[in-house]
Amino acid sequence: MSPSATRPLILVTNDDGITAPGIRNLVESISGLGDIVVVAPDSHQSGMGHAITISNILRMSTHDFGMTGVKAFKTNGTPVDCVKLAIYKILERKPDVLVSGINHGSNASINVIYSGTMSAAVEGALEGIPSVGFSLCDFAEDADFRTSRKIVRTITKQVLEHGTPKGTCLNVNIPKLNPEDLLGLKICRQGAGHWSDSFEERQAPGGKTYYWMTGNYTDVDKGEDTDEWALRNRYVSVVPVQYDMTAYHAMTELNEWNLNIED
Amino acid sequence: MSPSATRPLILVTNDDGITAPGIRNLVESISGLGDIVVVAPDSHQSGMGHAITISNILRMSTHDFGMTGVKAFKTNGTPVDCVKLAIYKILERKPDVLVSGINHGSNASINVIYSGTMSAAVEGALEGIPSVGFSLCDFAEDADFRTSRKIVRTITKQVLEHGTPKGTCLNVNIPKLNPEDLLGLKICRQGAGHWSDSFEERQAPGGKTYYWMTGNYTDVDKGEDTDEWALRNRYVSVVPVQYDMTAYHAMTELNEWNLNIED
Repeated sequence: MSPSATRPLILVTNDDGITAPGIRNLVESISGLGDIVVVAPDSHQSGMGHAITISNILRMSTHDFGMTGVKAFKTNGTPVDCVKLAIYKILERKPDVLVSGINHGSNASINVIYSGTMSAAVEGALEGIPSVGFSLCDFAEDADFRTSRKIVRTITKQVLEHGTPKGTCLNVNIPKLNPEDLLGLKICRQGAGHWSDSFEERQAPGGKTYYWMTGNYTDVDKGEDTDEWALRNRYVSVVPVQYDMTAYHAMTELNEWNLNIED
Repeated sequence: MSPSATRPLILVTNDDGITAPGIRNLVESISGLGDIVVVAPDSHQSGMGHAITISNILRMSTHDFGMTGVKAFKTNGTPVDCVKLAIYKILERKPDVLVSGINHGSNASINVIYSGTMSAAVEGALEGIPSVGFSLCDFAEDADFRTSRKIVRTITKQVLEHGTPKGTCLNVNIPKLNPEDLLGLKICRQGAGHWSDSFEERQAPGGKTYYWMTGNYTDVDKGEDTDEWALRNRYVSVVPVQYDMTAYHAMTELNEWNLNIED
């Protein structure tokens, strides 16, 4: 497909699935900023991280998003698959911006690493596309997206104007607040946090044991420059996220090890 | 289960599944270094990235690994699920080291981000466990693991002695070479590379279209300090990988944007 070359091309995806309220609110809030193409999972893909489908088949079909001028496709793939399908199969040119979300639930702190929403944005960055993941700190299906809509439009316009810093995408988390209670936006670092998990044991009708994973998150970071701090203090957090995972500071320490290969 | 408190406790996982030759070679090569517990997927989980199973059930059962003193469990979960199950359900104390692999195929460069093998190691690091992912640059089912076995034993012993630098795990990639052709080990940064994907279109017997994703990798990094350079030049690459994805260098640039929220 060949959108107008004069208007920005905006690729939209998410991990909650193409029918989630979050992605609808995202698309509505960027309406008019460019040609919008949605490529999103046909079902819930939360917690998929940077998973890709290489050992199984992918399906894809058009989807009626119900909004004039919005082209939409759904797939059985992960959020990262959606980005790859969009770039290498669906679109005739590279999008000017990729926006992912609005996720139902926070992707602040270490959650960035498990998040399908953010992995789609990281994949966009890998392709050289200015990319942003948006998440609202409210898991409710009927969450109030008024504040999120303002933030999404503000940041998408800025990213269309400035791009994103080289090798990065943005992780934007929005507190569960009315627009008038928000103090502003803050550029933050990823806070340190920890999930303590537990596995609830149940018996299937046939008697076989299975487990549900649940977790408790603890913020273990005392800093006032973290995303978690910003969200607790009525700010939207904006963390630049990079895909170079090298711990440069650790290279010196490792070079002091005796790494001779044993016979 | 309660292993000996006087011997190191070693947690082993992978993403190729509990019956893969890679994990067997890994376990054999660390034999005698401690009490070994294997918790691994019951089938192939390559490309799963940092996916976790939160919208579906997990199953887990014991598995006869066929080696004296090795306890083993298989699950339908992802590599990261395996680490969580081990820590929060199976083991009575925190492992002294986590080793993941030996992956059938490279996880150098940007592949770290898609890799289930490496995501398991990152999850271990998040839990404060010195963790290493090992990958052999050979996809063959009957790959020659002689070189890998020496490397795995060497590095596992070093990590049992030193731990790993705070907030990191190690991404170890091993070139497809005979032991005598290897020049040594190099501490490296993650090289920059790019996957160009394509989607092969096929028709199911009923006529419905489906796709297989395939990709071509290009090394776009001219540096001689990257993992890809090391592997091409007969070295084992060792990259310290961190889970703090903040692009600190980009925070200043972002603070110069006009991030006022629109009405």
